[in-house]
Amino acid sequence: MRTIRTAAAQLGPIQKAEERPAVVARMIALLDAAKREGATFVVYPELALTTFFPRWHHEDRAEADRWFEREMPGPETRPLFERARQHGMAMSFGYAELTPEGRHFNTSILVDGSGAIVGKYRKVHLPGHVEFDPERTHQHLEKRYFEPGDLGFPVWRMMGGILGMCICNDRRWPETYRSMGLQGVEMVVLGFNTPSVNSQKGGEALDKRMFHHKLSLQAGAYQNSTWVVAVAKAGTEDGHHLMGGTCIVDPDGEVVAELAGEDDGIVVHDCDLDATLFGKTTIFDFGRHRRIEHYGRITGQVGVELPPE
Amino acid sequence: MRTIRTAAAQLGPIQKAEERPAVVARMIALLDAAKREGATFVVYPELALTTFFPRWHHEDRAEADRWFEREMPGPETRPLFERARQHGMAMSFGYAELTPEGRHFNTSILVDGSGAIVGKYRKVHLPGHVEFDPERTHQHLEKRYFEPGDLGFPVWRMMGGILGMCICNDRRWPETYRSMGLQGVEMVVLGFNTPSVNSQKGGEALDKRMFHHKLSLQAGAYQNSTWVVAVAKAGTEDGHHLMGGTCIVDPDGEVVAELAGEDDGIVVHDCDLDATLFGKTTIFDFGRHRRIEHYGRITGQVGVELPPE
Repeated sequence: MRTIRTAAAQLGPIQKAEERPAVVARMIALLDAAKREGATFVVYPELALTTFFPRWHHEDRAEADRWFEREMPGPETRPLFERARQHGMAMSFGYAELTPEGRHFNTSILVDGSGAIVGKYRKVHLPGHVEFDPERTHQHLEKRYFEPGDLGFPVWRMMGGILGMCICNDRRWPETYRSMGLQGVEMVVLGFNTPSVNSQKGGEALDKRMFHHKLSLQAGAYQNSTWVVAVAKAGTEDGHHLMGGTCIVDPDGEVVAELAGEDDGIVVHDCDLDATLFGKTTIFDFGRHRRIEHYGRITGQVGVELPPE
Repeated sequence: MRTIRTAAAQLGPIQKAEERPAVVARMIALLDAAKREGATFVVYPELALTTFFPRWHHEDRAEADRWFEREMPGPETRPLFERARQHGMAMSFGYAELTPEGRHFNTSILVDGSGAIVGKYRKVHLPGHVEFDPERTHQHLEKRYFEPGDLGFPVWRMMGGILGMCICNDRRWPETYRSMGLQGVEMVVLGFNTPSVNSQKGGEALDKRMFHHKLSLQAGAYQNSTWVVAVAKAGTEDGHHLMGGTCIVDPDGEVVAELAGEDDGIVVHDCDLDATLFGKTTIFDFGRHRRIEHYGRITGQVGVELPPE
């Protein structure tokens, strides 16, 4: 057994007016709670330090820079890194990254038990749109405020296993899991901020959206024989509702731990990385079964190419 | 609405001793039943004409040629084609194909309402093994008796829509659906023969295997916004049990029709191909959202390449 006792640390809503130090204090409280339950690894949501700001349209994009971090850790996030280091706990969380060159990414990091940042991922599959869209029930301007990630889907050796990250909408794309599965990933961690209303299909029920969320996680886990840890920012931010659905999926595709509700909270599970071995050496032994000579369209074309009429 | 009233036509077990004319008579009975329910398209299982022979080890592979078809239609299958033509019904079914050049494939075809074969698919993802394996609870010798398909994952315009095929184990591989999704597929049809016991994990429960089956279909449907019609050969063949699980999945990933039991039978559903449009033009608008520059491993490597130690 190679077990990582993992805490999925959900955050309730963060209002626009809530400042980073207050959010960091909430994250530290969850870290302490995870420590009390013996967890060695804590996973927080996407854009954990702020409200889900892509719902707000700024004509001048620079106005949105207030939601971005110019350094990590910075003065406001250092207390979280300090506390994790004291506990000897590893962690992952997401934030909006503004690079010294002025580039904007939706980013997550892996931090080891010494407080060192050992991995960085930048969201590849940005949902939403660039310009204000009056047709939508609400705005989802990720394509306005971020550029697509430029780091691919790397994995890292950590805590005796092989870990990878993705973010929110990435989880709906099988390419995400497969890119990491082809590097032997044993645990994929991800955070999400998912509006409980489909901005282009107001009548879609919340249970349908929760179904799609879990379906994507479970298929990705099963088809790559990996753990998947998915953590929500949930609840109502300035009148806009984000769904919950924080859960841990085992390499057989089963949801084995789940957090009810939409508040700050943790759910802890002993994730045995050796449980990934059966699938990886039998039905999903890629080396024996994959036929890349027939997959050319997956990397050869971006969009749909219809057959001739 | 572009509706195809589709019948998923499950076959119960076919014993080794059962000759093709008897099987074809059963298939015709299902065709007639589908006609009575107003269906215009009938989907039968993988290897619909014979028992699931890859469970039987022949030291001399040529002995297995008795399970293969050298022509399609041939004298024994022509009555099925005749009846379908009389009904003006399209159909798809699977069979073991022996080509004039002596090549062996696990094949399925699309036949239009005039009785013409308009599409052929040869199974790409062959499960199982080549040599007799005394460690297994039963043999699964598809890699012995077939070579991997050489036709890729084509789609065809038919009945006002875009249809594709895959077979059994193909359904567990997201590359299968994506390859067709990138050609705008609106309905994927597939047959399967799935032992209810995992030959390498005897303790795996039937409900777990049914879960994996549906999970794969549902994720493939949702993530490509396509209908998926999956049809079992089920029941006990010469002491070996095949699971059922015949079902139709809508482009939202929901199982909308399902057949209980393990006998010959049909389940009919009006599949509206226009229901695929919402997903294809929003969250899974591939042209807007896919980032092929980061998918290189999917076609660039067959098996796992671990990160450096």
